Amino acid sequence: MGKIVALCKRRGFIYPSSEIYGGINGFWDYGPLGAELKRNLRDAWWRAMVHERTDVAGLDASIIMHPKIWEASGHVESFQDPLVDCKKCKGRWRADQLPETKCPQGGPHDYTEARPFNLMFKTSVGPVEESASISYLRPETAQAIFVQFLNVLNTTRLKVPFGIAQIGKAFRNEINPRNFTFRSREFEQMELEFFVKPDAFVREGERTVAQWHEYWVEERFRWYESIGLPRAKLHPRVYEKKELAHYASACTDIEFDFPFGRQELEGIAARGDFDLSQHQKFSGQKMEYFDEEAKARYIPHVIEPSAGLDRTVLALLCHAYDEETVTDEKGQSETRVVMRFAPRIAPIKVAVFPLLKNKEVLVTKAQAVFRLLQKHFVCQWDDRGNIGKRYRYQDEQGTPWCVTIDFETLEGAKADAPEFGVKAGDKETVTVRDRDSMKQVRVRISELVTEISKRF
Amino acid sequence: MGKIVALCKRRGFIYPSSEIYGGINGFWDYGPLGAELKRNLRDAWWRAMVHERTDVAGLDASIIMHPKIWEASGHVESFQDPLVDCKKCKGRWRADQLPETKCPQGGPHDYTEARPFNLMFKTSVGPVEESASISYLRPETAQAIFVQFLNVLNTTRLKVPFGIAQIGKAFRNEINPRNFTFRSREFEQMELEFFVKPDAFVREGERTVAQWHEYWVEERFRWYESIGLPRAKLHPRVYEKKELAHYASACTDIEFDFPFGRQELEGIAARGDFDLSQHQKFSGQKMEYFDEEAKARYIPHVIEPSAGLDRTVLALLCHAYDEETVTDEKGQSETRVVMRFAPRIAPIKVAVFPLLKNKEVLVTKAQAVFRLLQKHFVCQWDDRGNIGKRYRYQDEQGTPWCVTIDFETLEGAKADAPEFGVKAGDKETVTVRDRDSMKQVRVRISELVTEISKRF
Repeated sequence: MGKIVALCKRRGFIYPSSEIYGGINGFWDYGPLGAELKRNLRDAWWRAMVHERTDVAGLDASIIMHPKIWEASGHVESFQDPLVDCKKCKGRWRADQLPETKCPQGGPHDYTEARPFNLMFKTSVGPVEESASISYLRPETAQAIFVQFLNVLNTTRLKVPFGIAQIGKAFRNEINPRNFTFRSREFEQMELEFFVKPDAFVREGERTVAQWHEYWVEERFRWYESIGLPRAKLHPRVYEKKELAHYASACTDIEFDFPFGRQELEGIAARGDFDLSQHQKFSGQKMEYFDEEAKARYIPHVIEPSAGLDRTVLALLCHAYDEETVTDEKGQSETRVVMRFAPRIAPIKVAVFPLLKNKEVLVTKAQAVFRLLQKHFVCQWDDRGNIGKRYRYQDEQGTPWCVTIDFETLEGAKADAPEFGVKAGDKETVTVRDRDSMKQVRVRISELVTEISKRF
Repeated sequence: MGKIVALCKRRGFIYPSSEIYGGINGFWDYGPLGAELKRNLRDAWWRAMVHERTDVAGLDASIIMHPKIWEASGHVESFQDPLVDCKKCKGRWRADQLPETKCPQGGPHDYTEARPFNLMFKTSVGPVEESASISYLRPETAQAIFVQFLNVLNTTRLKVPFGIAQIGKAFRNEINPRNFTFRSREFEQMELEFFVKPDAFVREGERTVAQWHEYWVEERFRWYESIGLPRAKLHPRVYEKKELAHYASACTDIEFDFPFGRQELEGIAARGDFDLSQHQKFSGQKMEYFDEEAKARYIPHVIEPSAGLDRTVLALLCHAYDEETVTDEKGQSETRVVMRFAPRIAPIKVAVFPLLKNKEVLVTKAQAVFRLLQKHFVCQWDDRGNIGKRYRYQDEQGTPWCVTIDFETLEGAKADAPEFGVKAGDKETVTVRDRDSMKQVRVRISELVTEISKRF
């Protein structure tokens, strides 16, 4: 894990937040490559969950909402960890994570009884600081979806079964943030609330609540595979009856084999009609759906696939990281660090190099190729050092393909057309080097976009 | 403006946050169409500012950062509005926005002296609530960029002049949120900090600080035009010397003609080396850049194009809104409401209709066309009501093109191939209806993707 953390800093995937001020525990910033990785992941999720379906609509709600929402959801009352103090040194810990060290004041710690500590960040909204103005940073994105259920229903043409999807920040004042970005205080969630018929209204040929739950567990496994996480490292954890909240009928976590153990990426819960019912009770608004076919009103049940974006980024980083020993032409061995991201997730898709930096004709031609590719892929230009070093640099960034413009390119251009435009004839070729096999092939410039697109 | 607000609610662009609980002043949620519009705008900005350039890297930093950052930036001391209370009714207002109404307790209000009110939202981080744990929700995304300047510099191959771009939420506890989403308490910014040589190091042929400022003003005007806002509604507001902060050498706002007046979309400021110098002073870390060519160390100067995402969405909504009187075949006049978004910004690009909902062959063929188009564009399926009503519905959503599968499509299919796949031969055609001209043309299914792509 240490090596991955070091690479994240070294290559600009992830930095500690506020690092020049000594950092702030539980907060992280995504650097240039991390920001691209996160973007790709958000897009892949949104595409699969919203754009490729006809039964899901998106939402982008505020982080600060009416405080009563968190009473209805149960977060004000019970979203808390038990906390213990040492009366001597004033240290503070989660009751289930007491330190093994002695008290700095001497002897063992002198613990208080465990007291509940609410994990929501509080703030005050409006110019008057008083209890009525207290609000919270959302500890999950899900509640905004329930609260806007009626608006989405009334302003779209969706009918049950349908879903509302949201990606956004959430905040939890964790007592002990840990495992790099895995458990942090500020994080991003990708949540779907999928509203289905209660079993009493299900007709023949339609899925029951349990079947919808099964459907979404399988869909979500497939999605993780589609972004390059192998099924072998993904595991369902099916909750036992006694582990479930009183309103839930099922919950399955998707766990991933992190270097620090098997941990949850996503939970897929069948939450019954609990959330909508609570909001109906606390807001006084009817949260019912009128089912035209069944000629009945009911509060839909909900299946909630709730994924952590930062955790998924971390899983991708951990899975992608690889070291291998390679031997160069001179028989010298060295260790190559390579991030084996699936191409669709890789922050940079193509790097473009002129073989030599100080040869103007090479540079001009390479720039033309760069502009051509940039219209289709996220590209990076690199003209520093020698080609071997540029490859290693791109390997650490996980760039699937490096395109080099060399003297053979120019020969082809000359044979074909005197000017160095990209109207490129049949004889103009460049090398395309594959990150994983390290093999190079020559490809015609006129076929470059098609050839690279094919490899995704 | 009222009509636009009503349409936003009716069609699912924007809802009041927490509406079922009576709302929360200054917070808004983006519904299904608004979420897509925002996504398109973010992507257009990121593409223009990061992907299409070789001199800008992205960043995605945390909202909560080390509190000392806001001391260094000056926000703790001076990010405040003057506040006035009425001693009788306890009302509270900005000193420059006093109400014209009488005091509810009778007679005129009895105002206190104006007192400063800090606009940052405060919270407490960690399990111990004490002054040391106070932190803030960032009131701007810019400071995270300055704080990570060294990390980005050290983990990329960028050299001055270069920029760091970020899109993200920011929070200001505005005393009087107003003008719909224009001035809200939670909003999203798109900010670039572009680091340039101080004039003393500028060599012949290179841009001076003032020239870089000019460059970015022009670039940003062009960007707003590229998303469909006409130059005629965009206006530069050049700050006078006396309006500038002491460290700034220039600032130009880009203003837009909103229905409620000419208001700022973006400010482009030349901020000198103020921010990096302040962080150097407060963090004790050298924020210098070593210029290999000039063989000198200096703190770069910065040009900051800082745009409001929500304001730009609002400008797009205001500009797109149009009403026109149309007359149908029977000579009946009606008012058509149409959102004239530029296609690249429109939430839905193509709607696909089977002419009749209850004709299975039409529906099957339409589904095949839908699946074909969905691979390339954000599409919507609609089979309700009659075609005329579907067109009106799509007009209000701003969908540029509606594709209808009708009996002529089937005739073509029969003539060409007996099965209803999308291998579609020359004779299979559909109608493509243009949102703005309302004209329909028949297009071959085999050419549909190309034909629609051309119209962007």
